[in-house]
Amino acid sequence: MKHLLIVAHGSRRAESNDEVRRLAASLRAQAGERFDDVDCAFLEIAEPSIPDGIECSVRRGATQVVVMPYFLSAGRHVAEDIPREVTVKQNEYPQVRIHIAPYLGAAGGIARLMLDQAEGVA
Amino acid sequence: MKHLLIVAHGSRRAESNDEVRRLAASLRAQAGERFDDVDCAFLEIAEPSIPDGIECSVRRGATQVVVMPYFLSAGRHVAEDIPREVTVKQNEYPQVRIHIAPYLGAAGGIARLMLDQAEGVA
Repeated sequence: MKHLLIVAHGSRRAESNDEVRRLAASLRAQAGERFDDVDCAFLEIAEPSIPDGIECSVRRGATQVVVMPYFLSAGRHVAEDIPREVTVKQNEYPQVRIHIAPYLGAAGGIARLMLDQAEGVA
Repeated sequence: MKHLLIVAHGSRRAESNDEVRRLAASLRAQAGERFDDVDCAFLEIAEPSIPDGIECSVRRGATQVVVMPYFLSAGRHVAEDIPREVTVKQNEYPQVRIHIAPYLGAAGGIARLMLDQAEGVA
């Protein structure tokens, strides 16, 4: 059982957090056989937290969890805070493989995606 | 002459701003005939500012500028601050068509990009 957990920063603006939840739902709908489930968690402010999100996946039977930081740059949150929270749960559940994917901004296809999007309005 | 201007928030962390500059260079390299040039600008903290970025495009001969917000959610910066700055320059250069593209987080292809990226580490 392979789960994908999208981790966003979390915002005081509820609509921004809901956008992330809708994105997770969209990934879930498109995941096909690649992931058995897709959910989201938040580093700060919004719920669920990263530990709670991982905990939920494990309880629902995940044997592998991919954590993907929904961030555009590799600041402290990506480099330190998210790995720290993941490590705590990894130590708690050594039988579950938890990987951290590159953050969104580092995705190879992002330049092309942006060009496609920009061309659509030009 | 069609230019694309990627607009990021701007960070106190110089490396984050440089990431945006590298991304702009990557888009420039991939733009082909879609855009004659691609550059970046910043809403706060880093240089160039949005007005300076648009100004630079116009001086270099752009007759059309697509401004793409490099943001993941539609907060105040995307909804108000960027349009306000763009409007000032649009009024100054009525002969140049300046469009604002949807922000990155709203790009239709983002869910698929994330699935591809996540699958690569699973």
